[in-house]
Amino acid sequence: MLVVMDAHATPEDIQAVCTVIEDMGLQANTMPGPTRTAIGITGNQGAIAEAARLKLMPGVRDVIRVTAPYKLVSREYREADTIIEINGVQIGGPSLVVMAGPCSIEGREQLLSTAEAVKAAGATILRGGAFKPRTSPYSFQGMGEDGLKLLAEARELTGMPVITEVMDTEQVDLVAEYADILQLGARNMQNFALLKRVGRTRRPVMLKRGLSSTVKDWLLSAEYIMAEGNQAVILCERGIRTFDDHSRGTFDLSVVPVLRELTHLPIIVDPSHATGRWQSILPMSRAGIASGADGLMIEVHPNPAEAWSDGEQSLLPERFVELMEQVERIADAMDRPIQGRTKAAAI
Amino acid sequence: MLVVMDAHATPEDIQAVCTVIEDMGLQANTMPGPTRTAIGITGNQGAIAEAARLKLMPGVRDVIRVTAPYKLVSREYREADTIIEINGVQIGGPSLVVMAGPCSIEGREQLLSTAEAVKAAGATILRGGAFKPRTSPYSFQGMGEDGLKLLAEARELTGMPVITEVMDTEQVDLVAEYADILQLGARNMQNFALLKRVGRTRRPVMLKRGLSSTVKDWLLSAEYIMAEGNQAVILCERGIRTFDDHSRGTFDLSVVPVLRELTHLPIIVDPSHATGRWQSILPMSRAGIASGADGLMIEVHPNPAEAWSDGEQSLLPERFVELMEQVERIADAMDRPIQGRTKAAAI
Amino acid sequence: MLVVMDAHATPEDIQAVCTVIEDMGLQANTMPGPTRTAIGITGNQGAIAEAARLKLMPGVRDVIRVTAPYKLVSREYREADTIIEINGVQIGGPSLVVMAGPCSIEGREQLLSTAEAVKAAGATILRGGAFKPRTSPYSFQGMGEDGLKLLAEARELTGMPVITEVMDTEQVDLVAEYADILQLGARNMQNFALLKRVGRTRRPVMLKRGLSSTVKDWLLSAEYIMAEGNQAVILCERGIRTFDDHSRGTFDLSVVPVLRELTHLPIIVDPSHATGRWQSILPMSRAGIASGADGLMIEVHPNPAEAWSDGEQSLLPERFVELMEQVERIADAMDRPIQGRTKAAAI
Amino acid sequence: MLVVMDAHATPEDIQAVCTVIEDMGLQANTMPGPTRTAIGITGNQGAIAEAARLKLMPGVRDVIRVTAPYKLVSREYREADTIIEINGVQIGGPSLVVMAGPCSIEGREQLLSTAEAVKAAGATILRGGAFKPRTSPYSFQGMGEDGLKLLAEARELTGMPVITEVMDTEQVDLVAEYADILQLGARNMQNFALLKRVGRTRRPVMLKRGLSSTVKDWLLSAEYIMAEGNQAVILCERGIRTFDDHSRGTFDLSVVPVLRELTHLPIIVDPSHATGRWQSILPMSRAGIASGADGLMIEVHPNPAEAWSDGEQSLLPERFVELMEQVERIADAMDRPIQGRTKAAAI
Repeated sequence: MLVVMDAHATPEDIQAVCTVIEDMGLQANTMPGPTRTAIGITGNQGAIAEAARLKLMPGVRDVIRVTAPYKLVSREYREADTIIEINGVQIGGPSLVVMAGPCSIEGREQLLSTAEAVKAAGATILRGGAFKPRTSPYSFQGMGEDGLKLLAEARELTGMPVITEVMDTEQVDLVAEYADILQLGARNMQNFALLKRVGRTRRPVMLKRGLSSTVKDWLLSAEYIMAEGNQAVILCERGIRTFDDHSRGTFDLSVVPVLRELTHLPIIVDPSHATGRWQSILPMSRAGIASGADGLMIEVHPNPAEAWSDGEQSLLPERFVELMEQVERIADAMDRPIQGRTKAAAI
Repeated sequence: MLVVMDAHATPEDIQAVCTVIEDMGLQANTMPGPTRTAIGITGNQGAIAEAARLKLMPGVRDVIRVTAPYKLVSREYREADTIIEINGVQIGGPSLVVMAGPCSIEGREQLLSTAEAVKAAGATILRGGAFKPRTSPYSFQGMGEDGLKLLAEARELTGMPVITEVMDTEQVDLVAEYADILQLGARNMQNFALLKRVGRTRRPVMLKRGLSSTVKDWLLSAEYIMAEGNQAVILCERGIRTFDDHSRGTFDLSVVPVLRELTHLPIIVDPSHATGRWQSILPMSRAGIASGADGLMIEVHPNPAEAWSDGEQSLLPERFVELMEQVERIADAMDRPIQGRTKAAAI
Repeated sequence: MLVVMDAHATPEDIQAVCTVIEDMGLQANTMPGPTRTAIGITGNQGAIAEAARLKLMPGVRDVIRVTAPYKLVSREYREADTIIEINGVQIGGPSLVVMAGPCSIEGREQLLSTAEAVKAAGATILRGGAFKPRTSPYSFQGMGEDGLKLLAEARELTGMPVITEVMDTEQVDLVAEYADILQLGARNMQNFALLKRVGRTRRPVMLKRGLSSTVKDWLLSAEYIMAEGNQAVILCERGIRTFDDHSRGTFDLSVVPVLRELTHLPIIVDPSHATGRWQSILPMSRAGIASGADGLMIEVHPNPAEAWSDGEQSLLPERFVELMEQVERIADAMDRPIQGRTKAAAI
Repeated sequence: MLVVMDAHATPEDIQAVCTVIEDMGLQANTMPGPTRTAIGITGNQGAIAEAARLKLMPGVRDVIRVTAPYKLVSREYREADTIIEINGVQIGGPSLVVMAGPCSIEGREQLLSTAEAVKAAGATILRGGAFKPRTSPYSFQGMGEDGLKLLAEARELTGMPVITEVMDTEQVDLVAEYADILQLGARNMQNFALLKRVGRTRRPVMLKRGLSSTVKDWLLSAEYIMAEGNQAVILCERGIRTFDDHSRGTFDLSVVPVLRELTHLPIIVDPSHATGRWQSILPMSRAGIASGADGLMIEVHPNPAEAWSDGEQSLLPERFVELMEQVERIADAMDRPIQGRTKAAAI
């Protein structure tokens, strides 16, 4: 940490700051300059909690933090990529994973037919929402436990692990009973009680990035889960909120190489929620894989026009086949086969 | 709702859209133009859920929604301002309310001395956090129930109603036992399970605006609470997240006149969290009142440099006195006395 | 400046960075810590241009700048507030200034009647656009020199100094011939050729903040003007572009106290462009003055519904009278009379 | 256009709006609904300029525009992709183009060696800045005409067309004398005088997206150029400004499929400026091509650590070779060979 003193700071001000730093058990390194003095702090193991205290002292202009506030999620803590394995499907390994399925579970026929269609095309994890976070209280709120049961049936039928969202601490046990992966939605990325609770389950957690989350916030939310003992965290970029209005969100693919440097956790990208336009999903899936992500999450619906939620951003099964064909070509160019594609499997 | 057809749409495309609209029990009003046809939909009572279905039909370029998706929160539903009264303190009435106190409750002495100081200066509601939403899992997480007990003791001592944050459904009953007003934080603005749960209590709820929340999202979250039967909702602007980095957030005071038109709910502004700089709190409190807000929420701490959270944005009690003096002059210029100021009380 | 080394940096990496710093004629202050070493740089007079060079050296994780990159605009360079005086009207002094008039000059009658109306209400500077920056090439582009002539006539008639926008280097001489203050629009805030050119005139310049300008960018643009020798620069906040869509822009009043600390230049706020809604102008004018701004810029039109530009955000003259009455009460509460109001003049 | 009346609007209000619409020579289509009436306007050829007038009428709640305000740039106006050809290099055709070179021209040796290196790797257009838009007046401002002469020499030597930025109307003739393509920078995207002026040259123009530009703003700026007669406009995405701080900007690749639908103009993406980190350029170049862009603009410097500008985001020539190899694999997967790559040329 660096304390920058004001140009008008007195020697007494500077001395007082040094004394406080030393009282914290740390070293103060005074660096006088022609216009102002800076004081470097060394000796700390992690981030310094008392930064605010220094910032309020007389003559202090700014306090600049240097140490990253997260630990378990960082590449410095663990250098090798985290690979999460569920029933033979790997997330974060050398090959790619595709999670697909309907936004909401709407019924047996809808879910099972979609599950079979996405499996045939090469998806290896089935998605489907039973508890739905909806902006309006008057929108369809999900089938609840009935939906979870259908999800379990679909897993039985197809052999695919299933991922579904959990919205509240009180639902965690129930959802964890049925789901192979717990999904935390963008609007709950900083629901700290929920983060802690899923950190105490032994289910992998996919943590979607909040609408206005910085990388630091996001990694600290992952740290909440890991600090409770659950090391199986997957990060999912799903679009951020900016001034831009051409699509539902701004799909921040440039976060992928940055995350790769900072963390060992697997990275999934979700072009369906990010763009909100089915026409953009195919090109942005290609781009997501080319940016270096470990996989995709895609919404597929047998009849998007009649979907109970997110129909505008759902793909017809036949278009999902086309997507998988195109993504496979990009995946080949990246030397990362898609798990679940016969051709890829044969490589 | 208005369906805008593509320039190349065929008469069959147009007819198909009209048929679907009529199948919904609504009227389709075809408006042919020189370059494209638009179809107005009438006959609906509220927002039309099936918009996505229309958007995906052949020849449809865009679907434009006209009806606001919220109802109970709207001025059209209830014309008169909602006034919430707690132990003789009014929120949303002709006179102004000031909520003040420490960010976190840190101990008996800290809370009680702050409570007495802010009361003496004219605050009428005491704030203090017992459960703290912190970005990092390694930061102080609040005193929990012990903090709530101290809050109740401070109420006893000063007579001031108390407001404190609730972060999770499982805490609602506990917090509601001690608090007069439940606060929902920015990061929980779209925690829909929590919104519903506090909607089923009979405590007033102060709903802070999310960091990237539009007015529509915010009002729909308030609608979640009201739809469960709780009509006592207070809106609190606390800064939004933008590219701007001079302050902690961007304090969006221009939302105040817009909310006034759209909703009957009371509006509080929080310059402490919005700016994150104690130097900005005084001028932005004046500005907040001048913009037409119904009151302020201000963080006060007897020793900000040693605060366990948010010290940088906390005011010393003596500076809070100065704030109240200056705000009172603005309040007078607005003909809205501050409840709790002797002079105002005398009016 | 502080160079933060990577946890894995070798002693040779650290030595190499120190050598480069010393080759620049500066001092390197090595601060070894338990996880990583930081190197403080001292001895520089201003910002260090070679930062990029250091950032690319082996073992360097980050380079943190400490020194503000601007100089002439800063409060450290000049402590006293800059006061600009034009024909007896002061901008940035103890009393407030109101600039008002139509968005575009549309004709003799329109301009002169507006000028007289705003003067009667207490405005002391007349605004009016002759060259208009319009998003669409098909929108009205302004009356050009004919408009400037009308502006000069209005000044003659009313005695008010006039402000008008200049959009291009080739127009600067022409506009400077007629205008008392040159306005640079938000979209030209980083038109560096234009900044330099107006810096070589002897007319005061009002520099509007760019739609996505940070404070640093804005002050550096002001520095461009001052570095050419023109010290009379006025800053004008007119709304920034964020995700927020309830108003035309997000009116960032919290920039006012921040600017006050960093710079000695006068600060004007423009609620007309910031909000784009005539209903918001009155409350946000009050808030702007309460935040500590030195004055307002307001659009007034005798018949907003027929205005050739920005009708939605223009006030009728009678509403402008109401605005001045309300703002005067706030101004009184701030002990800052409005120049041009009889009552204020009498103080 | 759709006029939405207030719930409380009277029949007289509605009639008055219809009369105004008919006075404009257009048709008013009244659509009464249970809560409010909407009035559809038909008969207009383009966008309706008088929208503001209607919005200010009594009883009007909102005016919703339907018609896109641009024309020449739109796919509806011209269905086939625009292909720009310069000395045998195509921009916007079936094969891809790579523009590369240093940020700033710093000298003969630097420019010529970079030009030869990027050509050898498969670039077909040389970039290099002679007039530099710099945030600070104290940063290097470019070599000016001397730089342009070096650019012409590099073209002579390598046969590559050259692109360089023009910052001001007064420089247009000079720059157009030397450059094959005129570049308009992000900060000048709404410098309307400059847009008009380059629209009157016969040089292709590459228009970079503004930092906070919507797609509509961007296309309207392109329309300014085309409306003056210059049909050769290239759009370049170079990162937008958002709350996100992990990279220099937020690289908005999801704009690519949206632009493809709306416009026939070629689309280039610039990962160097968008991310500001050389480590991100390689993955984001792959992603840019996979998203469907027509080409890349990349900064290359023989010695980034000593670059006079943008060293942090410049690639060493050897890394540019690696980039081209990886991008070629993605290009092959897209069936879009890179002009200038031997292998691609052989296909």
